[in-house]
Amino acid sequence: MFTKNKSISISSLDETKLIAQIRRWLGDVAPLSPEGMGDDCAVIQVPLGKQILTSDSLSYGQHFDHKIDAKDAGAKLIKRNLSDIAAMGGHPSYALLTLLCGGDLNLEWLSEFIKGVRENCEYYKVRIVGGDISSLPSGQFSSVLSLYGYLENDPLLRSGSQSGDAIYVTGSLGGSRARKHYNFLPRLAEGRWLAESGVCSALIDLTDGIAKDLRELVPNLCAAYLSLDRIPISEAAQEIATRSGYAPIQHAFCDGEDYELLFTIKEGYDTRSFEEAWAERFPKTALNRIGQMRPSKSGAPYINEATGTNILWTKGFEHFSNERPN
Amino acid sequence: MFTKNKSISISSLDETKLIAQIRRWLGDVAPLSPEGMGDDCAVIQVPLGKQILTSDSLSYGQHFDHKIDAKDAGAKLIKRNLSDIAAMGGHPSYALLTLLCGGDLNLEWLSEFIKGVRENCEYYKVRIVGGDISSLPSGQFSSVLSLYGYLENDPLLRSGSQSGDAIYVTGSLGGSRARKHYNFLPRLAEGRWLAESGVCSALIDLTDGIAKDLRELVPNLCAAYLSLDRIPISEAAQEIATRSGYAPIQHAFCDGEDYELLFTIKEGYDTRSFEEAWAERFPKTALNRIGQMRPSKSGAPYINEATGTNILWTKGFEHFSNERPN
Repeated sequence: MFTKNKSISISSLDETKLIAQIRRWLGDVAPLSPEGMGDDCAVIQVPLGKQILTSDSLSYGQHFDHKIDAKDAGAKLIKRNLSDIAAMGGHPSYALLTLLCGGDLNLEWLSEFIKGVRENCEYYKVRIVGGDISSLPSGQFSSVLSLYGYLENDPLLRSGSQSGDAIYVTGSLGGSRARKHYNFLPRLAEGRWLAESGVCSALIDLTDGIAKDLRELVPNLCAAYLSLDRIPISEAAQEIATRSGYAPIQHAFCDGEDYELLFTIKEGYDTRSFEEAWAERFPKTALNRIGQMRPSKSGAPYINEATGTNILWTKGFEHFSNERPN
Repeated sequence: MFTKNKSISISSLDETKLIAQIRRWLGDVAPLSPEGMGDDCAVIQVPLGKQILTSDSLSYGQHFDHKIDAKDAGAKLIKRNLSDIAAMGGHPSYALLTLLCGGDLNLEWLSEFIKGVRENCEYYKVRIVGGDISSLPSGQFSSVLSLYGYLENDPLLRSGSQSGDAIYVTGSLGGSRARKHYNFLPRLAEGRWLAESGVCSALIDLTDGIAKDLRELVPNLCAAYLSLDRIPISEAAQEIATRSGYAPIQHAFCDGEDYELLFTIKEGYDTRSFEEAWAERFPKTALNRIGQMRPSKSGAPYINEATGTNILWTKGFEHFSNERPN
């Protein structure tokens, strides 16, 4: 992705020409000024409803390496953000894209990276209206996308669960580092459907694994009582477990980067009919009821429903301490 | 700003604790969830009027070095963005802050950096409602701020100038690298006053120098006829010119990072009364009428009014090619 041949690196273009080139690569998802790039700020047409904001980054060496296709890296940057919009039950609208890169970045690589961003903008109806480009020392690349969106219903917060609520998760978990964290689909339609349903009390997208993220949903003086045999373990997690020294369920709990939805349904709603309605609306998105929020004085966030003992996997992937599943 | 002593670096905290610490440092400018950090997105209360978006970054080694106070670096990150809001005639409202840094970043340094951001948020009424934090290899630090704002009047675009319009610039220019690019004040009040006045046809903030930025305002088939003796040259530019080999006016033209406002006033308005009204409202902000947009077939963007010859300084500071004033 980096090159010593200056004529095919981004340093062959001055800043103005590089920005013009990126706009061409973005095509129709980069509207004209003043809505789009080209002035000091973008002037946007805000859709009706409450507005929501989120931001995520993707850095070479940290979130991906040279073995990853540039297009997959660009797609991942925007899909991470789209998953946050999904986790509020919202629609995406506008984005700002910031690129920080060494002058030796290959232009062809950047073109493919932008293509990965653009294809997702086209599919999910996002317009890139600005951002920033700035140089870093050779061999470095970081990208940041700030995504704006809006809600048609009340936001699905992390804090709405109460004792008695049923806990659900979409898809299957663990082993995402093998491949899935590039080819996941942000669960936008599912998030919006949950927001419209009125039965969902809390929602989060799984970025750090159930071990870390589920804790955000557990009400005060409660614990999540989990049926470990209902946690959906991905094939990748099964496969990795054959050589990692950890059990498949540990990978499903702690690996992170699943970008699945984890949510609770208010007590009193018929879970059977909820599950049937889901299966009809989203036949391709697996749904598993993995437990229930219940009163607990133990202080532990997770309890094994079958044994009544605390589940000790409470840490997901930590960015700075690089702790692994314990 | 980096340390090998792990106990005083950011790697001494896990991600959750680091984010909690940053929130404490931000204090009241970081509202509670759901308006602020803590959920998948921030849910904001959008002020009336058109919404505007901008983003700017600040990287160690590129925009600042270890000789710069951390607080000044943090202040600069947000002031660069505020200057873009000023250049639309807008008000700032919400921001997302992204930090990409090596685990060896000194916590005390980060605390001061955040203080520089916070003080400007307090003064200019900006709330930090989210962002992202992610690790880079040791010794690296980049920050990105996306700023949201709104307009009470029509936006002051770059494209509104017509032949006959007078060209103005605030403050004094050049030599900003000496110091001024840290202690500048974003011209927000001036920008808003211009937006309300109804006489301003185009506005930009000077980030790359007149040489590059003024071109954005020049109408088709026109040139900016400039009175070079009216370009306000800063003391820093005068001082640097004694050793740089370039004339002071070249520094004023090309150095960039002035963060002054460059704008045009519609033909037909009494420039004398405009200047008097300005002096009354902004007695501390120098204003100079430096030229006029006039028809030109030469193709050159800038013409020396005194001699009728093309001004050849047409490039500002270029981020990737690192060209200097020619």
